[in-house]
Amino acid sequence: MLKLDDITRPTLILDVDTAKANISRMADKADEQGIYFRPHFKTHQSAQIGEWFRNEGVSGITVSSLEMARYFAAAGWRDITIAFPVNMRQIPEIDAFPKEVRLNLVLESVEPLSRMHAETHISADIWIKVDAGSLRTGLNWQDVDRVQQLLLALHSAPALTYRGLLTHAGHSYACAGPDEIRRTYTDSVERMIWLEKQLTKRGFPKGEISVGDTPGCTLSESLGDVDEIRPGNFIFFDAHQYHLGVCGFERIAVAVACPVVALHPERSEAVLYGGAIHLSKDFELVDGEHHYGLVCKPENGRWGQPLEGAYMRMLSQEHGVAHLQSEDLESLKVGDLLYVIPAHSCLTVQCLGEYLTLDGQRITTLETRKRY
Amino acid sequence: MLKLDDITRPTLILDVDTAKANISRMADKADEQGIYFRPHFKTHQSAQIGEWFRNEGVSGITVSSLEMARYFAAAGWRDITIAFPVNMRQIPEIDAFPKEVRLNLVLESVEPLSRMHAETHISADIWIKVDAGSLRTGLNWQDVDRVQQLLLALHSAPALTYRGLLTHAGHSYACAGPDEIRRTYTDSVERMIWLEKQLTKRGFPKGEISVGDTPGCTLSESLGDVDEIRPGNFIFFDAHQYHLGVCGFERIAVAVACPVVALHPERSEAVLYGGAIHLSKDFELVDGEHHYGLVCKPENGRWGQPLEGAYMRMLSQEHGVAHLQSEDLESLKVGDLLYVIPAHSCLTVQCLGEYLTLDGQRITTLETRKRY
Repeated sequence: MLKLDDITRPTLILDVDTAKANISRMADKADEQGIYFRPHFKTHQSAQIGEWFRNEGVSGITVSSLEMARYFAAAGWRDITIAFPVNMRQIPEIDAFPKEVRLNLVLESVEPLSRMHAETHISADIWIKVDAGSLRTGLNWQDVDRVQQLLLALHSAPALTYRGLLTHAGHSYACAGPDEIRRTYTDSVERMIWLEKQLTKRGFPKGEISVGDTPGCTLSESLGDVDEIRPGNFIFFDAHQYHLGVCGFERIAVAVACPVVALHPERSEAVLYGGAIHLSKDFELVDGEHHYGLVCKPENGRWGQPLEGAYMRMLSQEHGVAHLQSEDLESLKVGDLLYVIPAHSCLTVQCLGEYLTLDGQRITTLETRKRY
Repeated sequence: MLKLDDITRPTLILDVDTAKANISRMADKADEQGIYFRPHFKTHQSAQIGEWFRNEGVSGITVSSLEMARYFAAAGWRDITIAFPVNMRQIPEIDAFPKEVRLNLVLESVEPLSRMHAETHISADIWIKVDAGSLRTGLNWQDVDRVQQLLLALHSAPALTYRGLLTHAGHSYACAGPDEIRRTYTDSVERMIWLEKQLTKRGFPKGEISVGDTPGCTLSESLGDVDEIRPGNFIFFDAHQYHLGVCGFERIAVAVACPVVALHPERSEAVLYGGAIHLSKDFELVDGEHHYGLVCKPENGRWGQPLEGAYMRMLSQEHGVAHLQSEDLESLKVGDLLYVIPAHSCLTVQCLGEYLTLDGQRITTLETRKRY
């Protein structure tokens, strides 16, 4: 057990109660609307935290890599969606996956499908990845012909069972605020429903619809006529979600405790031990400036409210420069701790690879490594 | 041994000959000018790669954390500068450091010095951190009084031996090109010399001067009247250094091999398995857009020239979106490999945590973790 006061290096602090309440809230919402809740585990990446979802009745999960799928399979999960286009070069690894796990694979081109069918014994559920506006990956939602082509190819691969259409409306992260996020969610769901209808019109059996970005699933009261949601970030939230209006500050469940190593009153800045390798270099753009997180002081055994006007101005490999109002800086001493609310919690978890809970328990993840 | 053709996931590829030539060149330059070469090992973070420096006569090194210092101490290094302000909370760890290693510590405030002197048996060399223009950390080079105050405090701590003034002109990374980089280097050296002179005028014994950013040390023909240089990135370089005009493309020694998982000719983009957790989210700003790396095709068992007009447009956790000219996209197939030259190689090494050499050897680092 480690007391927060005894922290010596940048440490990812987890407020377990807040995280569990975030899980409950999303699980209840899906449950009330009769929608399957398949949370994305790429945010927390921890077998131990996964159990908190199991206690909420979750049995199917989403991950972003084959390695993460193996890690959670070893932790007892038996129904796993790998929400990343099947990578041709990993087809032998998919073939070798423990057979007791039902894999859900995501496709957007014919080549991996043909190879899986011709060269392996893979039996899996298949989702077609659809781009409902994010311009990242997936077949364009209006391109019914290409979706149809993939569905026809699936017909000749009986071990691969078509489940439905899957999208991630990641462009919600670029919205201006709650109203635009809700519209983006509704639009993407409507686009998915439209595409599904075109397919049934063409004689294909009805498929499911899977959606799920944290902003949309959190803010939209009705999740719409979908079968499954797959949000991930909602367990912790972060500065970006807070500024988007997705969550109140009190729902943020992680912060990075950083020792103060230098004070620069002449420019109202504190230098923290806490840089790009701890927080990630992910940022929010605020009036054209890059902000790398919010800054809080310790209060009642956790982090307090965000300091007004304070933000992380610059990150190099190990250094973080916090810009503070002068009265906040004046009360700081070298050796104090500050808490940074990361711009993007998923990447911060990936960087730090383990948690310390408010009551001093260490929680490991897929990324935990040996310490020297 | 793994052939490059057999790569299945984002893999950090290292061209050993190019890296060794980069080391030689910098070692020779320092040697010819009679300047001590204390390379920063935070770029490569590998005990095995450290040996290549030893073969060039290097005996003292720079690191950015106590953990990294312990890792390299275990690999036999006996003279280590931790180029990060002494963190009050890690003073007991410094006290417990293996005594056969001579530590060089960096200070910019009195508090850690007082505590080390009062509460520990730490015997170390001390450098005063000076800000010669980077606005990150260190005492302002014009603030002779504060430097003097620290020097006076050092007098009363005989186990802590004053060595000199140390700076990192990190603002060279924001320069427009080679001429401005050379001016920045010269300016920062002149500022350090000026400060040193003020101190001797005030009766303090002469101290050394340690400088060292990769752009300045690479481009400035004369390293100036300094005692020591500490560049790090020069071993690998990266897209940012290339665009700054610091290195030719042929001197870049690392690239990330990424499988192509989807093609989007309608927007001339390829989706790669290779995202923020592999490349880091570090970026270059090009006409107001964020670029996350250059893109190359395989050629003669390594990466070829950067594809004209191609860049990484977007990174999410595991996905990378490469924008390519349409003729380059047309010749690609799903399942091919592309190479990404990272925006910032230090952070990419940190993310991937191990290398694969062009002839298929695996090289580990401080960050290497268990694979599931």
